[in-house]
Amino acid sequence: MPNLALPDESFRDSDADGFDPAVVTAQARDALEAGNGAALATLVAPLHPADLADLIETLPAADRPVLTNTLDPERLAEVLPELHETVRVPLVEQLPPEHIATALTQLDSDDVLGILEDLDEEQLAAVLSTVDVEDRAYIETGLSYPEDTAGRLMQQEVVAVPRGSSVGGAIDRLRRMGDEELPTSFFDMYVVDADGRFVGAVPVHRMLLAPRAQSIDALMVPDAHPVEALSAQSAVAHVFRQYDVVSVPVVDAGGRLVGMITADDVVDVIDEEADRELMNLARGGQSDPHWSLWELARARFTWLFVNLGTAVLASAVIGLFEAAIDQVVALAVLMPIVASMGGNAGTQSLTVTVRGLAMKEIRPGTGLRFLCREMAAGGLNGIAFAVVGGLVAGLWFGDPWLAVVFAVAMIVTLLVASLVGTAIPFLLQRLRIDPAVASGVILTTATDVVGFFAFLGLAAVLLLG
Amino acid sequence: MPNLALPDESFRDSDADGFDPAVVTAQARDALEAGNGAALATLVAPLHPADLADLIETLPAADRPVLTNTLDPERLAEVLPELHETVRVPLVEQLPPEHIATALTQLDSDDVLGILEDLDEEQLAAVLSTVDVEDRAYIETGLSYPEDTAGRLMQQEVVAVPRGSSVGGAIDRLRRMGDEELPTSFFDMYVVDADGRFVGAVPVHRMLLAPRAQSIDALMVPDAHPVEALSAQSAVAHVFRQYDVVSVPVVDAGGRLVGMITADDVVDVIDEEADRELMNLARGGQSDPHWSLWELARARFTWLFVNLGTAVLASAVIGLFEAAIDQVVALAVLMPIVASMGGNAGTQSLTVTVRGLAMKEIRPGTGLRFLCREMAAGGLNGIAFAVVGGLVAGLWFGDPWLAVVFAVAMIVTLLVASLVGTAIPFLLQRLRIDPAVASGVILTTATDVVGFFAFLGLAAVLLLG
Repeated sequence: MPNLALPDESFRDSDADGFDPAVVTAQARDALEAGNGAALATLVAPLHPADLADLIETLPAADRPVLTNTLDPERLAEVLPELHETVRVPLVEQLPPEHIATALTQLDSDDVLGILEDLDEEQLAAVLSTVDVEDRAYIETGLSYPEDTAGRLMQQEVVAVPRGSSVGGAIDRLRRMGDEELPTSFFDMYVVDADGRFVGAVPVHRMLLAPRAQSIDALMVPDAHPVEALSAQSAVAHVFRQYDVVSVPVVDAGGRLVGMITADDVVDVIDEEADRELMNLARGGQSDPHWSLWELARARFTWLFVNLGTAVLASAVIGLFEAAIDQVVALAVLMPIVASMGGNAGTQSLTVTVRGLAMKEIRPGTGLRFLCREMAAGGLNGIAFAVVGGLVAGLWFGDPWLAVVFAVAMIVTLLVASLVGTAIPFLLQRLRIDPAVASGVILTTATDVVGFFAFLGLAAVLLLG
Repeated sequence: MPNLALPDESFRDSDADGFDPAVVTAQARDALEAGNGAALATLVAPLHPADLADLIETLPAADRPVLTNTLDPERLAEVLPELHETVRVPLVEQLPPEHIATALTQLDSDDVLGILEDLDEEQLAAVLSTVDVEDRAYIETGLSYPEDTAGRLMQQEVVAVPRGSSVGGAIDRLRRMGDEELPTSFFDMYVVDADGRFVGAVPVHRMLLAPRAQSIDALMVPDAHPVEALSAQSAVAHVFRQYDVVSVPVVDAGGRLVGMITADDVVDVIDEEADRELMNLARGGQSDPHWSLWELARARFTWLFVNLGTAVLASAVIGLFEAAIDQVVALAVLMPIVASMGGNAGTQSLTVTVRGLAMKEIRPGTGLRFLCREMAAGGLNGIAFAVVGGLVAGLWFGDPWLAVVFAVAMIVTLLVASLVGTAIPFLLQRLRIDPAVASGVILTTATDVVGFFAFLGLAAVLLLG
């Protein structure tokens, strides 16, 4: 029973799938250093392709080709799709094109595309020139769909049977299909009409239970949830979430069956969506374990630089009130609290809105109601923290007017923060910018500026006016 | 072709699945107000259970039972698992226990558990007393697994065949199984030994292609990735991510087959994981569309209150240096920039670390290397922003010593921020606290305190000392 996921307390140190990377990696390194190819081959032979890919990723870059060169084309084909892009590209680039082409014949078309789309044009052309005409057509069709569409995610290998076939006829047809035509695994057969248009889906388990003579049309499920090849991948993820399916057929604009998408591909899409939303809040906290330190620092630098710009903007607001701070130094002590509360409240609204839009929980027509609700919550908490914060400020500095200024600034800031945090994602969506990418930075700038302005401006008027 | 996901530009307003909630909801409300049950029933009849659930959720709470009462038990059973918990619980609570029990017989055991685990003890006992002995055993077994384990996620309905069966024998066995025993849909048959221990998995599509006389053992796939019933759900998600499977068998500690988990359930787990990580960064930005405004505001209040505490702590640090600020008011203008840069850099490291731990990309033994890398990146950017920030500060206030203080504070703060942002998730994990829940708040407090202390402390020593 290999790869058994042991019961754990969720956060224990050892790996859930029984593959101990530290041990295997150390052994593999020893074999590599000793130049012992036979030992290396024996060591990695029992590993699942995904685990072997993990092992390759942990090796120093220079040792990776030594290991991959020991793999036969079939094994190499299984491992390539599992490798991280930044590790895979240099490996693939140094393989002879005909070697790549041989490996690719083993894979479903979605994995082939995933590997080829990262190559430069020259190398892509070289690989395409060595594959046969049929494979080339497959690849070129796949690459013709824009990135982030269902067409890029799907595999073109599907099992299609003509409308009106008998179950027995469909099974016989399946048996006649070659390994290359058949998907590596599938859960539905698709019924098509004479023009290749999608008619319905028949779960494979239903076919097992049916007599050979039965018409396949009678086994179709009522809802197959076909998606169009040009649909956004996020729309595909929504179909999987909403309808609890494990695969969906893909059709072209004319309704013709062109491929299928399985749940394992959608899991990747969902992870990428979550990554994008996190990165928005983390403002540039992306990382690629295979980046050099230089690349890592540079990626972070860009976002920190943007942050410096917005922070300077907020500080410029403070600069307007230098005179006030000079007279009442307590203002300098309290002002970061107002900005921090605004940033926090705004982020709460922002996160809920970005997530709600991505998960399609906020539906057309309910946007205004959602906005009002967020602002009402922000306003209620503004009042609550006006009281709490006012008490804190009053007791700390013994100045009732300072407490009043602090309290009023808190209400204004939390109300505006909720408004801005909710409105930004809606506006970005309307401008066709992914709200999960850009909204975090805009929000912080807005809440800082509003927070400092409300507090220091009020102070200038009420305390010094 | 219902529910076709149209090509979209990802952010258009209309809904991806062709269900226009605004229109259907308006029509349903009209029918409800007119007391026209027949019109209502016709209106909702063609809807997918998941879409009908969405419709019910958009209705005012008082109208929901009116609609659900028009549904027959089978339809009600399909809709209940799709409803949001906060909408479902009050609906289920007012249904007669025997009505619930009838509905539940239609569902796979994982959906039954999902509904029953939210009931209070009294109602659960009432429902259990009306179901038959076999169903009760199923339910009690399911509820015996702790929350967040594979056992809670799995369905107990599986197709198991004895080792050594022929394909034909297995299919005949399948045909003899009743609807209640059979999973609603399945993609693998599981081979078990005489003691019920899991031996291997046979994809259903392989059975279609095999002759009836063939032994089923020959069709088993080499890696079936069984998980233990007491495994954490996050470990199960890892198996689906790593091995691109759409279902896995679940075994008990003795290796006996007890259930299976399908990809649609894991998609929910992955979404919940992502939600938890987002909420960490959003510091309390959770929301439930069915909460009252009061509940929403209260949930947010708690986190804002924590934030107030940490902000006051940071301000207390500023308070220590009131004298310095009183003399050099430019310090008050510049200090939020240092804290902001520290917060941003720390969040970058924190996000990458939390995500890397959750996705098991950071593996045991590589933690220290990861920490050094993050700190090196933080240090490099500290130097970069010491130069950039120092220039800005120097030009703004025309004081070279202020620029030096600002530059040194930037290096210290960014370095410490990377250290703290990376170290917190590791420490929390070691303390068996989910790093995705608690690390954000700790980080901000630390970076604020360090940022203010470094900048103002240095200023006090160098500028005024």
